Amino acid sequence: MTDPEPVPAVTESAEAIAAMEIRGAATIAAEAAEALAAQAEAVDADSPAAFRASMRAAARTLHRTRPTAVSLPNALRYVLQRMEGHDVEALRRNVVRAAETFVDQLDGARADLGRVGANRLADGDTVMTHCHSTDALACIEAAVDQGKSISAIVKETRPRNQGHITAERLRDIDVPVTLVVDSAARRALDEVDHVLVGADSIAADGGVINKIGTSGLAVNARERGVPIMTAAQTIKLHPETLTGHTVEIEMRDESEVIDDDVRESIGDVAVENPAFDVTPPRYMDAIVTEHGQFPPESIVTLMRELFGEGAAVPWAEP
Amino acid sequence: MTDPEPVPAVTESAEAIAAMEIRGAATIAAEAAEALAAQAEAVDADSPAAFRASMRAAARTLHRTRPTAVSLPNALRYVLQRMEGHDVEALRRNVVRAAETFVDQLDGARADLGRVGANRLADGDTVMTHCHSTDALACIEAAVDQGKSISAIVKETRPRNQGHITAERLRDIDVPVTLVVDSAARRALDEVDHVLVGADSIAADGGVINKIGTSGLAVNARERGVPIMTAAQTIKLHPETLTGHTVEIEMRDESEVIDDDVRESIGDVAVENPAFDVTPPRYMDAIVTEHGQFPPESIVTLMRELFGEGAAVPWAEP
Amino acid sequence: MTDPEPVPAVTESAEAIAAMEIRGAATIAAEAAEALAAQAEAVDADSPAAFRASMRAAARTLHRTRPTAVSLPNALRYVLQRMEGHDVEALRRNVVRAAETFVDQLDGARADLGRVGANRLADGDTVMTHCHSTDALACIEAAVDQGKSISAIVKETRPRNQGHITAERLRDIDVPVTLVVDSAARRALDEVDHVLVGADSIAADGGVINKIGTSGLAVNARERGVPIMTAAQTIKLHPETLTGHTVEIEMRDESEVIDDDVRESIGDVAVENPAFDVTPPRYMDAIVTEHGQFPPESIVTLMRELFGEGAAVPWAEP
Amino acid sequence: MTDPEPVPAVTESAEAIAAMEIRGAATIAAEAAEALAAQAEAVDADSPAAFRASMRAAARTLHRTRPTAVSLPNALRYVLQRMEGHDVEALRRNVVRAAETFVDQLDGARADLGRVGANRLADGDTVMTHCHSTDALACIEAAVDQGKSISAIVKETRPRNQGHITAERLRDIDVPVTLVVDSAARRALDEVDHVLVGADSIAADGGVINKIGTSGLAVNARERGVPIMTAAQTIKLHPETLTGHTVEIEMRDESEVIDDDVRESIGDVAVENPAFDVTPPRYMDAIVTEHGQFPPESIVTLMRELFGEGAAVPWAEP
Amino acid sequence: MTDPEPVPAVTESAEAIAAMEIRGAATIAAEAAEALAAQAEAVDADSPAAFRASMRAAARTLHRTRPTAVSLPNALRYVLQRMEGHDVEALRRNVVRAAETFVDQLDGARADLGRVGANRLADGDTVMTHCHSTDALACIEAAVDQGKSISAIVKETRPRNQGHITAERLRDIDVPVTLVVDSAARRALDEVDHVLVGADSIAADGGVINKIGTSGLAVNARERGVPIMTAAQTIKLHPETLTGHTVEIEMRDESEVIDDDVRESIGDVAVENPAFDVTPPRYMDAIVTEHGQFPPESIVTLMRELFGEGAAVPWAEP
Amino acid sequence: MTDPEPVPAVTESAEAIAAMEIRGAATIAAEAAEALAAQAEAVDADSPAAFRASMRAAARTLHRTRPTAVSLPNALRYVLQRMEGHDVEALRRNVVRAAETFVDQLDGARADLGRVGANRLADGDTVMTHCHSTDALACIEAAVDQGKSISAIVKETRPRNQGHITAERLRDIDVPVTLVVDSAARRALDEVDHVLVGADSIAADGGVINKIGTSGLAVNARERGVPIMTAAQTIKLHPETLTGHTVEIEMRDESEVIDDDVRESIGDVAVENPAFDVTPPRYMDAIVTEHGQFPPESIVTLMRELFGEGAAVPWAEP
Repeated sequence: MTDPEPVPAVTESAEAIAAMEIRGAATIAAEAAEALAAQAEAVDADSPAAFRASMRAAARTLHRTRPTAVSLPNALRYVLQRMEGHDVEALRRNVVRAAETFVDQLDGARADLGRVGANRLADGDTVMTHCHSTDALACIEAAVDQGKSISAIVKETRPRNQGHITAERLRDIDVPVTLVVDSAARRALDEVDHVLVGADSIAADGGVINKIGTSGLAVNARERGVPIMTAAQTIKLHPETLTGHTVEIEMRDESEVIDDDVRESIGDVAVENPAFDVTPPRYMDAIVTEHGQFPPESIVTLMRELFGEGAAVPWAEP
Repeated sequence: MTDPEPVPAVTESAEAIAAMEIRGAATIAAEAAEALAAQAEAVDADSPAAFRASMRAAARTLHRTRPTAVSLPNALRYVLQRMEGHDVEALRRNVVRAAETFVDQLDGARADLGRVGANRLADGDTVMTHCHSTDALACIEAAVDQGKSISAIVKETRPRNQGHITAERLRDIDVPVTLVVDSAARRALDEVDHVLVGADSIAADGGVINKIGTSGLAVNARERGVPIMTAAQTIKLHPETLTGHTVEIEMRDESEVIDDDVRESIGDVAVENPAFDVTPPRYMDAIVTEHGQFPPESIVTLMRELFGEGAAVPWAEP
Repeated sequence: MTDPEPVPAVTESAEAIAAMEIRGAATIAAEAAEALAAQAEAVDADSPAAFRASMRAAARTLHRTRPTAVSLPNALRYVLQRMEGHDVEALRRNVVRAAETFVDQLDGARADLGRVGANRLADGDTVMTHCHSTDALACIEAAVDQGKSISAIVKETRPRNQGHITAERLRDIDVPVTLVVDSAARRALDEVDHVLVGADSIAADGGVINKIGTSGLAVNARERGVPIMTAAQTIKLHPETLTGHTVEIEMRDESEVIDDDVRESIGDVAVENPAFDVTPPRYMDAIVTEHGQFPPESIVTLMRELFGEGAAVPWAEP
Repeated sequence: MTDPEPVPAVTESAEAIAAMEIRGAATIAAEAAEALAAQAEAVDADSPAAFRASMRAAARTLHRTRPTAVSLPNALRYVLQRMEGHDVEALRRNVVRAAETFVDQLDGARADLGRVGANRLADGDTVMTHCHSTDALACIEAAVDQGKSISAIVKETRPRNQGHITAERLRDIDVPVTLVVDSAARRALDEVDHVLVGADSIAADGGVINKIGTSGLAVNARERGVPIMTAAQTIKLHPETLTGHTVEIEMRDESEVIDDDVRESIGDVAVENPAFDVTPPRYMDAIVTEHGQFPPESIVTLMRELFGEGAAVPWAEP
Repeated sequence: MTDPEPVPAVTESAEAIAAMEIRGAATIAAEAAEALAAQAEAVDADSPAAFRASMRAAARTLHRTRPTAVSLPNALRYVLQRMEGHDVEALRRNVVRAAETFVDQLDGARADLGRVGANRLADGDTVMTHCHSTDALACIEAAVDQGKSISAIVKETRPRNQGHITAERLRDIDVPVTLVVDSAARRALDEVDHVLVGADSIAADGGVINKIGTSGLAVNARERGVPIMTAAQTIKLHPETLTGHTVEIEMRDESEVIDDDVRESIGDVAVENPAFDVTPPRYMDAIVTEHGQFPPESIVTLMRELFGEGAAVPWAEP
Repeated sequence: MTDPEPVPAVTESAEAIAAMEIRGAATIAAEAAEALAAQAEAVDADSPAAFRASMRAAARTLHRTRPTAVSLPNALRYVLQRMEGHDVEALRRNVVRAAETFVDQLDGARADLGRVGANRLADGDTVMTHCHSTDALACIEAAVDQGKSISAIVKETRPRNQGHITAERLRDIDVPVTLVVDSAARRALDEVDHVLVGADSIAADGGVINKIGTSGLAVNARERGVPIMTAAQTIKLHPETLTGHTVEIEMRDESEVIDDDVRESIGDVAVENPAFDVTPPRYMDAIVTEHGQFPPESIVTLMRELFGEGAAVPWAEP
């Protein structure tokens, strides 16, 4: 059975997400929620069942664009779980309202999370960052807003050097920045008061999936006696992991690691370029969300509050 | 008091070393020993005291070129400690002979060390490397010569990507190579049987000074349960550390870390580029030398055999 | 005051449990629930109070048979907590329904748990097992059902060699098995991707009570960098531990450890034969249940969901 | 805007708390709750809004006396969160009732907690204590009441030697006591079965804030293989930490550390005298409360049950 | 070229060793030394070169019998390294004398080692043993001779249950013994003051090769805070490991692990039965020899004193 | 057989040492050596044997005064091992010369050791000290002499508060000092670059016997990532430990821990007051001596250089 064609707004959103024109966990989630609202408003359904089916189909269209992104299904899940009502109008109204609420919460979440993370930092702290994370950045911004003096040691984060973006953003808010290669982390940790990273997604067993290098950094931070926290909005919590699923690690193109000249000179050498790794909960001191901070071993409780036991997929065909 | 002018061969060697035309611990050491022999052969001294003074002056000239390199003073030390005799001719003869012996031993040392390191590897092992070290490479080469099948995971080793050289050398001897960014090390360690690194120098407290990133790698190797060894000829042993001196870490230019474009866009951001770090002995399983293998905590005994208690500097003015 | 005599079905169940004709946590729990249903259906009570008293008495009879088994009181607790109603018929109906629900859930729980555990395993994994656990086995079975290729290293598990049973069961589903003595675990861990054990019971502080040797294995798994999980249905969660009670470790007969010949030759030597030990939560990566996976430090939340604060014993005399 | 003047009973309570005539977390909390009840009973309010404002003002007056004590705001929070009703009388009644309930629960909490902690101790155990904690003492008392034979090694706990009080209290209940200096802890741990401490407050990230020296003791207990637990009523849970706030450590006067003679002889030497330190959750085996025991990593769930997400401060001006 | 036929005494010794009629590291070593003396006394050589060749051939004959035993080549090495002299008679005399000295030292070594190990034990200690080691036993015997009261917890040591022998020997000297299965070790360690094991051989990197299970026990002893020592005469030191060689682990027959009945019932299941494992030096507190005690990381110094740099094999053909 | 009466100078020295008028490891050692010289000079012996017997008797007299001090027998051992010669005059001369050499070396040793320790410290370092050690102090003094800026955090070191002396001495050389109670160490370690302690004695297994509290501090320093070194002249190396002997820990009077008032109020409470504890080598980064620095695991090599295998007691009756 083929899915009914979604309304054009959904198709366009799906295409933009697939083409990575729309990027970033929160931006994707908002786009998906709004696309569902657009579908609800535009769809012509002659029964509650037909409305529901069209919504699920739209959700599936959106989901297929980035099957491993976690914020996207979380947005779909949030909206569809609130698709209640006895007639089409009620359903339509509730979907639109749920999408609005979701987007509103998303707007507030980064700021809320930032304040929680900032509260863990002290005036005068030097913070080490890895990769570029708007959630992690929000914590430093909020700390600066609280009047705290913060310095940063920024790892460049090969292969894509997102540390350069972080360095620029921090410099823009007058945080003194020292840039180092990733390998210099352990040595630099002697000058660091707090390590602060973001997350790609977070698993029910407390594992933090984040940019490749995070787990090695966390092990070194523990060894050097430096606390480390993850800043992650709850759209990063991965419901499927509640039932034991592990998060598949994306393997990216070798061209991020070596350019054509090196490729030629180096000859028959394989290149492996994993995008992420998994930091076990025992090496992470806290996960900071818009709902407060949690030891990684307790994030499962927040996940169960938000998602139940995680097995239901509300966009599945019945 | 100014030093007497050394003979031209010494001056030329000194210049070549200073200009880094002559590079690599063993090459520098051989050049220095041979320069001392040249000095001994060419110098016109009318008394044993004058001969000795001219030799010490030549040694000082050579030493000044790379004051933090450890193989250079070790070469000078080896030759000057054997400068014995009651007349100028005997002194000359002994210096020349000592220089020859030193160079001969150097030639054999890398191969001897390679066999010792190779004996620690098993057929079928996957070895992870960091940076480019001819001593570490010698171990893999010897293992291949022993008929063992070895694979390698090569860290690129930012900022100068010496891992590319290692990858090429290993490919040249038909060792299958996978290149990874430095941050991918912890994840890749699950597939690794042995980590193998070189050393810039080795301290009497068992600390291994090596390319930045080694200590973080060693901590992760221990955490992942993977053994790690350092391959280092004894010219890397640092006599001054016997008396508690620590090895100064060279800070290198930021241009190795960021290019001009990044420099411009990133604005007022400091870059710190340490060349080396120190791995504590408790994270290193063995140091492999041409005199056999040693737990890092025992390398001090070998140093005392070679250098005594380390305080004497035979090229010092009396 | 003596308890009223329970109906014959209860007495028979109690005898069968006491005689260990009925064994295994789930089987005992189902038997106990069904015995309570039988009591509810057969008892002749002239008032709600009398009905309740007879049910509690039946529960006590059943409880006495294996006072340290945890699934038995959990079954009794589940059924009696649902003994509600204003007249005898309503009470009877609710007890019977609760028993049915409990048994139904039990039937599904092993399969649900198996899928959760299987999700943690990857295609190609080698799993190490200790003792024989149907819950642990369910995870491997489900992984095989998911099409994953799994191999096993099976510890024989002295003194009763339940590893032989596990080996047979795994061979029956075409999982390649290597049997080792318990002492060979640390060496064999180099080839293992996941350690998988069951549980005798689980405490609110996250401690896993399981077959003697589990805690030593867990410590070694952590040291070797190998993840370890416990598969345990929620009937293994120990409500009394919520109030700090520790689980008493059963000491078994020496005849399991030495036979008569050794006994005679060995003379005046004591034999200590503890059935279980306690693995602290910090050495266990996850507890897998039919309600999903949990870090051991969070299992207390699930226990509180299921049992409240754990102090109430619904079969106690009022 | 100035706060309305609270009734005299509140002012008197506030003064007594500020002057430290009323001390101890539970005593302060009870006093504060009763002061609120007194305010509710005595205040003359002509509208629900006026009543509420007067109650919040009274709470602020009380809160200001010891801004860093955690049990005081917890008492205020408990009572004010139950200030519900549509008219002044209903509000008054509910406040008074909430205060009574709070005080009643407080009375029972220490005994309940004591039993939970006692359940973790075994007959014959030797317990090591740090500082003087009525909650920790309650555990030993309850264990003795359960008929267990307990011995104690009591750290003197510089600078104020509260260990002397603990020693006396334990001797009063016939527990054999050995007093040691704080530095003797690691050596004495070889004879210890359980370390038992109290808490000044407990953070949402599982950190235990307690008398200076606790964290060093906990690290040593882990290193020596000895379990350690914290006994803390839930009035010690710190709601502000749910939003990432850290607990400020009080720095006390140097006169507790050195007397005048030493001050004179020692000259220009600074003295630092922190009252507390923070023990990370990974070094603590359990937190024992009147609601049962929790791994420190799970205490956040109990905090969320009791306080929600922690941001609301019910005595804040609207 | 074939070796010259050794004298009959050598052939007989070789056969007895090969047939395992002569067993135990010290017994084999003594037999080999005496066989060389017999060869020296009986051989008819017309030149020093012929004498030397015949001695080397005899040594090769003996060496071939048990190529992985370490005490055998150590005996040969000791004697042949002392084969000095300018004529056959001097050579003969020196060989015989060396063999006598070696055997004499061997006789004293076990007692000397026992006293050293005993000095590490305290009156009242409980010692845990693994497998059966005469060297380890010598330490307990010497401690008892010193008047110390010692108890023992003896691991049975599957698959061959050598713990039964240890239990008998200890009972014979009135040491109270408790026998446990290997898996019970971690639990029993709470009652243990010292773990005491022997060694099959000891490597230059400080690794202790001993009965399978030793390394897992050592890891657990460290985790439980219990010191552990290895008792090993210097004939157990493995000269080849000075040059990086690893010690090959013998894989033994499956019949030690399962009997025929199990074999039949268990079907197509592999059995892996390694005889030894390797304990890294970081988990061993001391190695006790007849020359005193050494941290494992320093045993290389003793090896270099005894064997030089280890490369020379004095029975090799020139 | 009674010892011959030593000369008055020996008797007086012995009395002064016994009465603790002469204190401190180096002072006692010098006194003992000089007393032996005095004996040699004054004794009237008619044969080498008589001379030797009188010297041994004098040594025994001195040794008996403080049987657990390690520097005293080391002084006796040094002198008596050099008592060589064929006639009384030669013996006398050699004893006197040995005593002089010993005292000369002692004078230089503290300064030499200080320089070695100072070399491990960096300009700007904050050093934490425990107890009062002239050897540790020598390192800081030498660092200050080298022009380094050093700050100190000084633990008071209960029960005898020797930290007050350290604080005064450091203040005298213008080192800024912060005094803390012992329990504040872990918290203060965040500001510390190096922990520096002395030693009462050092064992062949690398264990450092030092003031009670050192081992707990060392464990915390490792956990916090702070390096720690021991400063100890070689007269602190304990020859008897080469043969496995452990160092007996002195138990001191309770009056150091509690005064009479506390004694009275506290009632029937035992006080345990051990003077020292043992820090395992794995928690100590280096031992600094006048012969250079050593990893603790290698100090046994230095001990064997100085004392041989440690069994000989040159003052024993033949």
